[in-house]
Parts: sequence; C-alpha cells; structure tokens
Amino acid sequence: MLSALELARRIEAGELTAVAVLDKCAETIAQRENEIGAFVALDLDAARARAKDAATTHAPLFGLPIGIKDIFDTADLPTEYGSTIYAGHRPTGDATLVAMIRRAGGIVAGKTVTTEFAHLRPGKTRNPRNPGHTPGGSSSGSAAAVAAGMLPLATGSQTGGSVIRPASYCGVAGFKPSFRLLPSVGMKCFSWTLDTAGLFGASVADVAFGTAAISGRDLRIDRGPPAAPRIALVRTHIWSQASAAMQGALETAARAAEAAGARVTDLALPPIFESAFDAHPTVQDYEAYRALAFEYDHHRDTLGPLLRALLDGAAAITPQAYDDARRVTKQARRALADVMADVDAILTPSAPSAAPESLASTGPAIFNRLWTLMGPPCVNIPGLAEPGGLPLGVQIVGRFGRDRNALEAARFVEQAIAARTKA
Amino acid sequence: MLSALELARRIEAGELTAVAVLDKCAETIAQRENEIGAFVALDLDAARARAKDAATTHAPLFGLPIGIKDIFDTADLPTEYGSTIYAGHRPTGDATLVAMIRRAGGIVAGKTVTTEFAHLRPGKTRNPRNPGHTPGGSSSGSAAAVAAGMLPLATGSQTGGSVIRPASYCGVAGFKPSFRLLPSVGMKCFSWTLDTAGLFGASVADVAFGTAAISGRDLRIDRGPPAAPRIALVRTHIWSQASAAMQGALETAARAAEAAGARVTDLALPPIFESAFDAHPTVQDYEAYRALAFEYDHHRDTLGPLLRALLDGAAAITPQAYDDARRVTKQARRALADVMADVDAILTPSAPSAAPESLASTGPAIFNRLWTLMGPPCVNIPGLAEPGGLPLGVQIVGRFGRDRNALEAARFVEQAIAARTKA
Repeated sequence: MLSALELARRIEAGELTAVAVLDKCAETIAQRENEIGAFVALDLDAARARAKDAATTHAPLFGLPIGIKDIFDTADLPTEYGSTIYAGHRPTGDATLVAMIRRAGGIVAGKTVTTEFAHLRPGKTRNPRNPGHTPGGSSSGSAAAVAAGMLPLATGSQTGGSVIRPASYCGVAGFKPSFRLLPSVGMKCFSWTLDTAGLFGASVADVAFGTAAISGRDLRIDRGPPAAPRIALVRTHIWSQASAAMQGALETAARAAEAAGARVTDLALPPIFESAFDAHPTVQDYEAYRALAFEYDHHRDTLGPLLRALLDGAAAITPQAYDDARRVTKQARRALADVMADVDAILTPSAPSAAPESLASTGPAIFNRLWTLMGPPCVNIPGLAEPGGLPLGVQIVGRFGRDRNALEAARFVEQAIAARTKA
Repeated sequence: MLSALELARRIEAGELTAVAVLDKCAETIAQRENEIGAFVALDLDAARARAKDAATTHAPLFGLPIGIKDIFDTADLPTEYGSTIYAGHRPTGDATLVAMIRRAGGIVAGKTVTTEFAHLRPGKTRNPRNPGHTPGGSSSGSAAAVAAGMLPLATGSQTGGSVIRPASYCGVAGFKPSFRLLPSVGMKCFSWTLDTAGLFGASVADVAFGTAAISGRDLRIDRGPPAAPRIALVRTHIWSQASAAMQGALETAARAAEAAGARVTDLALPPIFESAFDAHPTVQDYEAYRALAFEYDHHRDTLGPLLRALLDGAAAITPQAYDDARRVTKQARRALADVMADVDAILTPSAPSAAPESLASTGPAIFNRLWTLMGPPCVNIPGLAEPGGLPLGVQIVGRFGRDRNALEAARFVEQAIAARTKA
C-alpha cells in the first residue's frame, strides 16, 4: 500500500514529485484495476497535468492523487451514484469535500465504485486481498483502491457501516470523523441524520494526515508517540454474531494495547443502546424515502430490489415512529457521553467477520450502525488477520468532537498490534 | 390573498376545482406579475394539465398551486439559485421538499425569485404592498407571490431571516418550522447548520395546513379555537434598533393577546444569547466558504460584491473559531429550553421595521438570526401595519419540535390582533 504521509514527506523533501507519485499509481492501476474494478471513472491524463502544476505549491496534500467515491459530485468527471438512473450524469459543480481536497492541493484521480446510492446493491469491485470475496460496501472502490496500492487516499461515506466495514474487509485504515467534520454538501443524500463523509488510507496516521490536510484541523498524530489511552472494551449486545476469529481479534487487540501500556476495562453498554441500535433503520429508512423521493417516484423500476423493498416499506413509517427513534437517539447520545466520561475510546469489532466469500452482498453493518447514529469518530485499525489471511479490523470509537484523541488512540492500538506481531 | 385552507375546503366540498383555482391564480399573475416580478420561471400550462389530473384525487393539498423558491431543485423547471453562474441550469431531479409537495398532491406553478444563493443580492421582486419598497429576502418572490394573491402557498428558506423577514415586510404568514422538519435535500446549501426550509401563506392557519399536508404531521390548527398560550415577551438586546412603529406593534400584539386571555410575561434573555447572536455569522460564513467552494473557486468574479466580500473574509475563520461558535450555540440551545420551560412561546419582532423604501437591499435579519441558529419553530404573524399602511409582523418563537404549539400560539395572537382591530 502507499502511505500518503510517507509520500508527502518525500515530496516535501524533494525526493519525489507529484508526477512520480501519479505515475506509480497509474502503473499499479494498469496492473490491478482489471481484476479489482475499483473505478467507475478515471482521468489519469488530467490528473498528471494537475500533478505537474502541483510541483510549485506546498499545499497540505502536496499534489497527492485521491479517489472520490462516486457519491460525491464532480464537475470534471461523471457522477452516477451507483445507479443507472444517473448514467453519464455530469454535475454542474464539485461537492464541498471535493472542492476542499482541491483547495488542499490534492488531485482527483478518479471516481470509485459505490453500491447503488451508497446502499446495498454491489458494484463490480472485488476484494484485493482475495478477489472471490466482497470488498464490503458501500465505499467498495475506495477501500479496494487503497488496499491494492492504486491510490494513497480515497473518500468514503457511511450511513450504516460504509467506511469502517470495507476498511476492515480490505485491511486498510478507515476514518469516519465526527458527524459533519467533513461536509456532506454535494454528496448524494440517503439519510441526512446519518450520512457521514470519511477517508481511507494505508494506516491510521495516513487517514489522520489526510483529514488534517483537507479540513485544516490539528489532526496529525504522526509527530510523536501516541499517549497510552484509557480504553473501554465493548463487546455489544450482538457479540454472539461476531465470528470466533473476530472475537479473537478483538481480544488480541485489547491484550496488545494493555501490554503496551493502555488501561483496558470491560464496558457493558446500558439498554438504551440496544434501543438506539433498533432505532437506526427507522431514522435511515424514513429519511431515505424522502431523500430519494424523486428516484422512487419516477424510476422505481430501475432501483435494485433491496432498495426498492426498503423504500416500499419506508412509506409506512409514521412521523411519530420517526420522532420516537430520534428521541431514543438523543437519549443514547447523552448516555454515550456519560459512559465515556472516564475513557478516551471504545474498542469494538469493525465487522462481524472477515470479508464473506461472495460478490452478491457487501456484508452486514451491525457493528457500525449504532456508532453512525451516535455520531462520534470511528477508526478501523488494520493489522490483524484470519489464519487464512483475510483482514480482521478492530474499531476505535472516540468521543464526539474529539477526533484527534480517537485517532491517537487508534494509532496506539495499531502500533501495539504491530509490536505484538513482531514479537 | 388566497387562503389555501379555504380553497382546499371548497375543492373538497366540490364547490371549486383545482383547475378553477389555477385559473384564478393565472389571472392574478397576468395582472400583477409585470409590476411585482415574483417569478423567475412559470409554466402555467403544465400546471393546468396537472390540475386536471388532480380532480380525481383527494390528496392532502387537493391540487393547489404552489410556488417554489428558486433555491430548490426542480427537474421540470430551470433552477438558477439567483446566480448567473447557473443561468438555464436544469437539475436532474427534484429537491425532496418539491417531491413531497407533489406526493401530497400540490402542483408546482413556478419558481420564485431568490436573492443570490439566498444571501443578500436582491432579485427583481417588488413589495406588493408598495412597489417602491423591498419585499425582503432571500425568499422575496415567494412572499410577494402570496401577498399579491398570485398563489396560496410558496416555499422559502431561512439561514438568517429569509422567511420571517419577507413575510413581515409583505404582510403574509411565514413559517420556519423546527430545523429540518421540512427536509433541505436538493436545496442549494449556504450553511448546513442554519439553512431551514419554510412556507408562506395568507394566514397562520394556512401555513399550518400546508406544512401538515406536505409533512404528513398533525399540524393543522384550524379545527377548533386555539388554547390561550403562556407568552414570554422578548424585546432582545437589540430592542433599540427596532423602529418606534415596530416597538409599538409588539406592545399592541402583547396587549391584544393578554386581552384575549393569554398570560404575557416579560422575559430578559440571559447574556449567552448575545453571544449566540454574535456566533451566528461565524457559523454561517465558515460553512458558506465551504458550501459555495466550487462557485468561489471557479466563478469568484461572477459573484455579487457582498457575497464575494463575505467569502473573502470567511476564508480566514479558523476551525477553532467555528468550534467555539458551535459550543456557544449548544449552550444557548440548552439555555433556551430552560427559559422556555414555563411558557409556550416567545413573542418578539419579526424585523426591525416595516419594509424599507429601497430595492437595493432586502433589509436586516437581526431579529431572526438568533432564532435560526437556535432551531425552534418561528412564525410571522401578519395583521398589524404602520399608519402609512406597510405591514409590521410580529414573531412567535416556539419550543424546538413543538411546532404545533407554536402555530397554535401564533394563531391565537393573530386572532387577538384581528379582534382588536375590529373592536
């Protein structure tokens, strides 16, 4: 994989040019894209021309090429939202996150595969770790592009588990910042309460670097060793749905963190979080029925069967049921602030298992949707794997608005896992 | 003016058809649009064809024609956001609110004038009460279309004071519901924390009827007399910036409500609300610099001077300053819940004065921006006027999520004002 941080360091030091980085990416894309299918649109010539211009700037992203999930509008590349309804669609402008990436000196290299409207219907992407397995979704192409070393960074979005799950399946770092730290303007809406923009990179320090560069926030965590965090180990009420290998990975990560100096305590979440877990689909589906009203009302037969069924059912959700779900959400958010008062982060699985052997489904979001609804920063930590070799990600959940702390805790655990592997 | 509620009642009773309503609107538009300039796009033939189809349905909006502020995407009419950057722009789909209006059986009659990106640069619209005066903004065309009797209902949006102020200036009811009660998906974003969709109608009961029909929520307040509310009279820390006439109108409204049976108490807001008032532009401008990044980065010279200056300055707002402003916002929202614990509504001016005699400015939002930032329902109550005849609106601010109570309180005050005028 390509470390964005390392590439940026070498560009800054004059050892490498942005054009050389782009050429390296183009070479890997030429080798692997045919098998992996991470992209729906690529314009490497335009990207190379921009990389040449980038040589004179010292912008935060140093001309690094970035993949954009095809749920974000781009003026210079088609934007199809994973749906044939939008075949060849060319937006008038760039999504805010895309414009911010360009302002930061990043170069849009291509649009990456999303499931249909960032919901469940898979695109063409295969898992670079094993092409018979799903890369996860909905940010399938972005996770796969980074995992295959085709790009150092790529954007994603998460409404259920669409950043953390594919990051776990593909063995890359995934970062879902606090709700709206990265703006969602110009990102196709599925649920306005839940849709959260995020980023993929090779390691936790890479996604922290990328998010810092894009947002202008003090989120870089690579300049010194991370402090030992106070971690709450949360197995959740769906622990029995995690595979034995994932359960083992979480315990391994916890023990490694402890051995490295973290304080790790067990935490059983109070019952309000089960209610919040159940509230997530009510909030999501009620809003999707409205956010996708035009598509549903005019192109219902073009929608995939899963999304069509969701929207058919969502029509019956009453405002009362939706308000009740939002009330539970509010209560659970307050409860989360309370239970995290004495810890820096929660450690919990990123997904129920390694990537399933199927291209027909992108896997379940059950270990993600509660956290998406709560809104705090979530980080997938790569580094652990099944005996068979497929990655098993573990997840750090931080406190809302404390994204730097969450990233630092995730880096600590990532390093602890790596130290253990070496030992 | 045309009462949506009355028209719906007559259609339901078989006394009137949707086509007859449309024809009535078309007639008034033919008489007045030339002078008022409320519309940027009209397709009355298409609207009439849809009104014919509406005859067979009993949808909540009964085929009533509705104006759509040109900040909401429409697939069948151009959407220019008040900017020449988007001249002739035709979105691929409808905004969620537009789709919801169509689902409810409303008919999109035309697109109404907005200031540039719903900010300050005025469009062509004149105040129907006196064409030498501003109609207010940014929802200029929607307020004027309803005031001139050209349409019974029209949508608006408010980031500072863009629903309540033009409603006050034009002498119509304006309703800014609780944040996101009406979805903002497909509405051009200026500030994702502030942008709030709303509605204009002839009276408070009309906007309540319209919002109920569109949202499917229990917001109709016309089926019985409103309960006498407990009202807090809030003069705010900028009371001295209200004209003598507006100060008088607020006192008149308070005394009329009291005479009708309301409990009216004076409330001086604690200092956190001054801080929140000051925080509004920080939140707004920081987000606008990102929401309009594409336009600023690619079309800066095409922007009006006020917006260009705002964005030039906004580039320097730090994430820290933005986070501080959001922290103040959160504190003030909690304080608002506290100070409103024992009242149903706040009564406060809708604007500093009647509509200024100028077409070069849409007037100040100083009596609105605090409430937009806080997020609760706000209603402009028409019915009072300057001796010279220009309307003076007073504003009900309800509790967040208690939109029905706010509308009921506003209706109570509206009726109390009307009773006083008759007496």
